[in-house]
Amino acid sequence: MTSRRATSPVPVAAEPLQIDVEALIDPHLAAALAALDPLPSLLGGMARYHLGRVDAALTPVANGAVDRGKRIRPGVALLSCAAAGGDPATAGPLAAAIELLHNFTLVHDDIQDGSPIRRHRPTVWSIWGAGQAINAGDALFAVSQLSLFRLAEAGVPPALVLRLATAFNRMTAEIVGGQVLDLSFEGRDDVSPAAYLEMISGKTAAIVRFAAWAGALLAGAPEAVADRFGAFGRALGLGFQVRDDLLGIWGDPATTGKAAADDIRRRKQSLPILLLRQCANPAQRAELNDLYARPEIEAAGIRRVLTLLAEHDVRSTVEAEVRGFHDQAHRKLLAATGEAPNRARDSLLLLLETLASREA
Amino acid sequence: MTSRRATSPVPVAAEPLQIDVEALIDPHLAAALAALDPLPSLLGGMARYHLGRVDAALTPVANGAVDRGKRIRPGVALLSCAAAGGDPATAGPLAAAIELLHNFTLVHDDIQDGSPIRRHRPTVWSIWGAGQAINAGDALFAVSQLSLFRLAEAGVPPALVLRLATAFNRMTAEIVGGQVLDLSFEGRDDVSPAAYLEMISGKTAAIVRFAAWAGALLAGAPEAVADRFGAFGRALGLGFQVRDDLLGIWGDPATTGKAAADDIRRRKQSLPILLLRQCANPAQRAELNDLYARPEIEAAGIRRVLTLLAEHDVRSTVEAEVRGFHDQAHRKLLAATGEAPNRARDSLLLLLETLASREA
Repeated sequence: MTSRRATSPVPVAAEPLQIDVEALIDPHLAAALAALDPLPSLLGGMARYHLGRVDAALTPVANGAVDRGKRIRPGVALLSCAAAGGDPATAGPLAAAIELLHNFTLVHDDIQDGSPIRRHRPTVWSIWGAGQAINAGDALFAVSQLSLFRLAEAGVPPALVLRLATAFNRMTAEIVGGQVLDLSFEGRDDVSPAAYLEMISGKTAAIVRFAAWAGALLAGAPEAVADRFGAFGRALGLGFQVRDDLLGIWGDPATTGKAAADDIRRRKQSLPILLLRQCANPAQRAELNDLYARPEIEAAGIRRVLTLLAEHDVRSTVEAEVRGFHDQAHRKLLAATGEAPNRARDSLLLLLETLASREA
Repeated sequence: MTSRRATSPVPVAAEPLQIDVEALIDPHLAAALAALDPLPSLLGGMARYHLGRVDAALTPVANGAVDRGKRIRPGVALLSCAAAGGDPATAGPLAAAIELLHNFTLVHDDIQDGSPIRRHRPTVWSIWGAGQAINAGDALFAVSQLSLFRLAEAGVPPALVLRLATAFNRMTAEIVGGQVLDLSFEGRDDVSPAAYLEMISGKTAAIVRFAAWAGALLAGAPEAVADRFGAFGRALGLGFQVRDDLLGIWGDPATTGKAAADDIRRRKQSLPILLLRQCANPAQRAELNDLYARPEIEAAGIRRVLTLLAEHDVRSTVEAEVRGFHDQAHRKLLAATGEAPNRARDSLLLLLETLASREA
């Protein structure tokens, strides 16, 4: 899982900082969600269902019984705070706000994409309908703000909280902008890799950049240092998404939990397909566009796309992209922290390695 | 339009304060929306379309060319600030935030209700699809927060801004809770007037209560006074919604711009229908439930419901409800401001009269 790179310019220390992300954010998630308790129980119920805290009958489930996601974004916030010299616990309400915001976007994404399953369970809209799922997402957005504002109760100066809150909402607008692009790509055959990069910059990278930047600011890092943390987060987010695209086509169903080549079946405009369209010859491109104009791509079509991808060795290009973002993230983080011993920095480097080579 | 009540305990002064709500909020709306400009143009375009600032081709429209709504909520915020002794301009970013938040909820409501028309124009979802309309609403929610935070730039202490922002998001959760109830009422024949009151308390009244409360706080009003302003806003909001329900059944199509008895045709679970179900005899109730179990109620069914409403004189009961909320709002406002001359208070009283007797 944590395969080290031999070429890593700074070897990771023997004892990277271990933090329990779940334990650090859970009380803050619970406190923010409590704001829904005086309201109709279905609302808090749907929010908690999506977060893996209750089942579809709204009965609490034990910690660990349900997949609650990778917690990468809150982890980056907590570790960036620590790597910049702060106590990671300080960033608890921030990390919880980020996790809640992320889950708000997932609830709405699932409606927009018509996805029936998320983290091995039926999605909110598929149980309670699209109308109520819109409500669930809206409520998660509202409580994410409440979690962020709770930083002030923990002693963070109100002016700094407001600054973070302004950036938080600008970042949210970026995520939504990325989603606007993503939906607008559907059915098009002229999406450029540059447009794709703009899309994932908003949809995936903006929140990781914010997490790293805000974590560092909370630790008291100077502006320039926090910006370098942000650049690290952005590159990590971009690499994460491109790796995701790679697994969506070549991932092993046994580890990803998805069908083989699922992104081809779903006609997703992911990076491998955009690159293939770019380097295919005119006849191949026409064939590809014809396949992608259908409502769903069947087994024979999937095999054909895989053959074309292999012919143009697209996988190597995509792997090089992941590696490029990984190296960029690595450099930015070292620029942010320096090379002196820093156990939290080393944890972030390990996380980076893990994500760049992940199989699920 | 502004019919005075002879029984009004405090006569309205000769010169109630005149404020130009549009002029006071427009620069703040524009400043908040500018945050969307670096993003894909469709996003800011949809937000501005919904707000009546551009047409469906995203070309700017002149002020006044398009119905932008009644601006009641921002008006209450500005006038409450003035009535509590503040400069209404202070509350500009607050009023703009409230108007943006209100419009976020409308964009999502229109998707949830499948409404094709809003303010005489096609709704966002009916032009760009439900997926993009979800994005437009989410973006309006994010920029509403940005507008609120801009209070700090205008010199409001950050701790007060955070307090308002916390209440703003709790209020948003209340609106969403009301919407959860509203959707859950669909197709049911056992909705009580008490459940209806809970629904409109969230869906309609919470934001007006917040507007009045926050406007007063910004003016420096003591807590207890601000709470009375809030109680005034809540009662005004409840009366506004019940009057809306009344117009949805007995409104004149020439002034409302909607079809006659449109709420019956749409099978809306509005207060008149809930009251009718309560006082109808068992045979009538069965007949009513049968009509309301159909996908749409046709002309003969509408006539029958109107006859039943007339038989039980439901309109008088509903009018008494509106009058009750009106009187409550009147009393709460006087409790908040006292009876000494206060031109902004008198404007709020005039607004209250206007809304309680409005025909459109």
